[in-house]
Amino acid sequence: MDTFQLKISDAEYRQRCDGLLDQITAAGCSGVVLFDRDYIIYYCGFAFIPTERPIAFVMNSKGERGLFVPRMEVEHAQSNALIDAVAHYIEYPDDPHPMMALKKLLAEMGISGKVAADGDGYPRIFGYRGPKLTELGSISVHDIHDGVEDQMMVKSPAELALLEESCRWGNLALRLLQRYTRVGLTETEVERRASDEATRAMVAAIGPIYRGLSMTTAGAYGIYRGQIGRSGSNPHVLASNLTFQEGDVLVGESTAPIWGYVSELERTMFMGRPSDAQKRLFDHMIALQETAFKAFETAKTCSDVDKAVRAYFEKHDLTQHWRHHTGHAIGLRYHEGPFLDHGDHTPLKPGMVFTIEPGLYAPELGGFRHSDMVVVQEGGCKMMTFYPRDLENMIIPV
Amino acid sequence: MDTFQLKISDAEYRQRCDGLLDQITAAGCSGVVLFDRDYIIYYCGFAFIPTERPIAFVMNSKGERGLFVPRMEVEHAQSNALIDAVAHYIEYPDDPHPMMALKKLLAEMGISGKVAADGDGYPRIFGYRGPKLTELGSISVHDIHDGVEDQMMVKSPAELALLEESCRWGNLALRLLQRYTRVGLTETEVERRASDEATRAMVAAIGPIYRGLSMTTAGAYGIYRGQIGRSGSNPHVLASNLTFQEGDVLVGESTAPIWGYVSELERTMFMGRPSDAQKRLFDHMIALQETAFKAFETAKTCSDVDKAVRAYFEKHDLTQHWRHHTGHAIGLRYHEGPFLDHGDHTPLKPGMVFTIEPGLYAPELGGFRHSDMVVVQEGGCKMMTFYPRDLENMIIPV
Repeated sequence: MDTFQLKISDAEYRQRCDGLLDQITAAGCSGVVLFDRDYIIYYCGFAFIPTERPIAFVMNSKGERGLFVPRMEVEHAQSNALIDAVAHYIEYPDDPHPMMALKKLLAEMGISGKVAADGDGYPRIFGYRGPKLTELGSISVHDIHDGVEDQMMVKSPAELALLEESCRWGNLALRLLQRYTRVGLTETEVERRASDEATRAMVAAIGPIYRGLSMTTAGAYGIYRGQIGRSGSNPHVLASNLTFQEGDVLVGESTAPIWGYVSELERTMFMGRPSDAQKRLFDHMIALQETAFKAFETAKTCSDVDKAVRAYFEKHDLTQHWRHHTGHAIGLRYHEGPFLDHGDHTPLKPGMVFTIEPGLYAPELGGFRHSDMVVVQEGGCKMMTFYPRDLENMIIPV
Repeated sequence: MDTFQLKISDAEYRQRCDGLLDQITAAGCSGVVLFDRDYIIYYCGFAFIPTERPIAFVMNSKGERGLFVPRMEVEHAQSNALIDAVAHYIEYPDDPHPMMALKKLLAEMGISGKVAADGDGYPRIFGYRGPKLTELGSISVHDIHDGVEDQMMVKSPAELALLEESCRWGNLALRLLQRYTRVGLTETEVERRASDEATRAMVAAIGPIYRGLSMTTAGAYGIYRGQIGRSGSNPHVLASNLTFQEGDVLVGESTAPIWGYVSELERTMFMGRPSDAQKRLFDHMIALQETAFKAFETAKTCSDVDKAVRAYFEKHDLTQHWRHHTGHAIGLRYHEGPFLDHGDHTPLKPGMVFTIEPGLYAPELGGFRHSDMVVVQEGGCKMMTFYPRDLENMIIPV
């Protein structure tokens, strides 16, 4: 009997690897080496904390898969059913250098000459230093980034289920954030209360099988990230523990990591009734989102959606309030390609998942942005988030 | 009158830039381009959320400094007192590509030919795609990673003050974590309660000037990260919401982001009186830490400290319990170079800050590791963390 599984099956990981294998073969490579944590999770589900200790996923042209890890990750790597060979080094930087163990693994797996990779060696993070891949033998690197990114763009039914689960708990976190926000309270106390309660509920509801597997968040969260009153006029402001005041425009946002997958939900809220100036930008923001949703009915490429949104900005003389494109893809990373941007001509395909978040910003008022997630379908898109969007539901009593 | 400032002064940023300028000049470069967020914070304090939108810090051989940012970060970049020129692009990926604005900025600042950089273009994160630096003109890249890392290794008095402030709030978070841990409670609820309370206290105590500026944590935290009972035998296990049981060995850890700087504090704790087997490994762990502290009195290089620790492992026949080196440097990143590892021959210098965390791991028992932070001084080291280390203080009542 198949049991309920809120995760990616081994069969699906194998299918992804087959897709990668096709790319390697087509490019005439003897194998592939991936160093990026998200890429490694995508192809074999091996989740780890990236540090100065290099880790790599390796596959040869026969489809045999290996992991290159430090001693402390050996048991973890060996327990992964997708992996045929685990090569390890003792520690970083050690002597000889850890990369000598990767060199040996590549030789054993028959990988040399033209090799597909996501970089010429482990990236220079956390003070890591070491030889390039091309210095480990007679290797030339074929950049495989584009191929990997292209594969990750279209989500499978299992991925959509994980993203929907994330939307559910993000919805709770934002609901609690809105409920607990009051004049005189501070950003930090409200965010912590909402995020804490949402996380506990999520972990209890999903039960002991739950895994977040995220490096960016330890649980569900609902936060303002400093987007309070005038501070919200910079869409990427950083939190600074402001106190809520009557008349503030707020942008609340939420997510929850579900086996590495994350969602995005954002809402523009008001501390009391909005002023006419605030209401005007809110109404335009809603109309811009509707413009984007509708654009999917006829859009062929990502740029088509953003062009429809930008046309609305121009038609209504709102260009001074524009700061960023319509949205981005989302999955194992909270931003990923393709982008709903007039310069991104990637064709839209069913199964692609995007945020729809055209925003308006005014230094004297703040920021106005809802963000909803949609999945592309034939002839349109389907909303994955389900929080109210209308003005009346966005007003916090004062 | 100088006011109290728990941050890096503009004078210190200028001093750091001067150090970088010396390196550029010595290497015969016309300028430098840095894409790494931590490097950019280090040289000019400009904190941002890294995404697919490329950002870079640029300096020419005259010492003029520029920032290359998307439209949404323009006001933020212009408010930075260290920056002489801000160049921006509208959005990513847009058309023309954002890198065309960087190309223009480099030309305006007289940067061409041999250019120091931390990479040949913006890294391939969050689905970013774009031309290399060497494709923007007649540019050859001189890798500046090592020079930047070397500069970041020795901490200034202001950096030490920020790290000590981080230790203070990490101490509170771990104290609360230990206090709230009880048989039958779950990892998540205890972690959230301790982290929530510590964060609120920190933000209230430091007041409205407080900035965390961290991408890895939104506040002070005290967590177990799954290091509970047998699960703790993998030092880098990921959290899984275990329930505390009598007899468990725990490794709790804490930190708090202070203007980007982070500390590390870890303690091995017991749910009730430890067994003889547990006590034996705990005692060895304490002795290993003492061995490392003492080694600083005579050690000339990082490897000297780790060699003393490894000698203890061998002398007491503990090698089967060894998993990782003695420690790592810490500052703007929770791991950074140099490393207290027998393969790292970096000379020790006053002002270097390290974690001291030799650990012992047994599959049937779990993990045993205290981590304390020390700053190197003439003739030894000084402890920066101040949590009790002895066995009696590590026992949680059952």
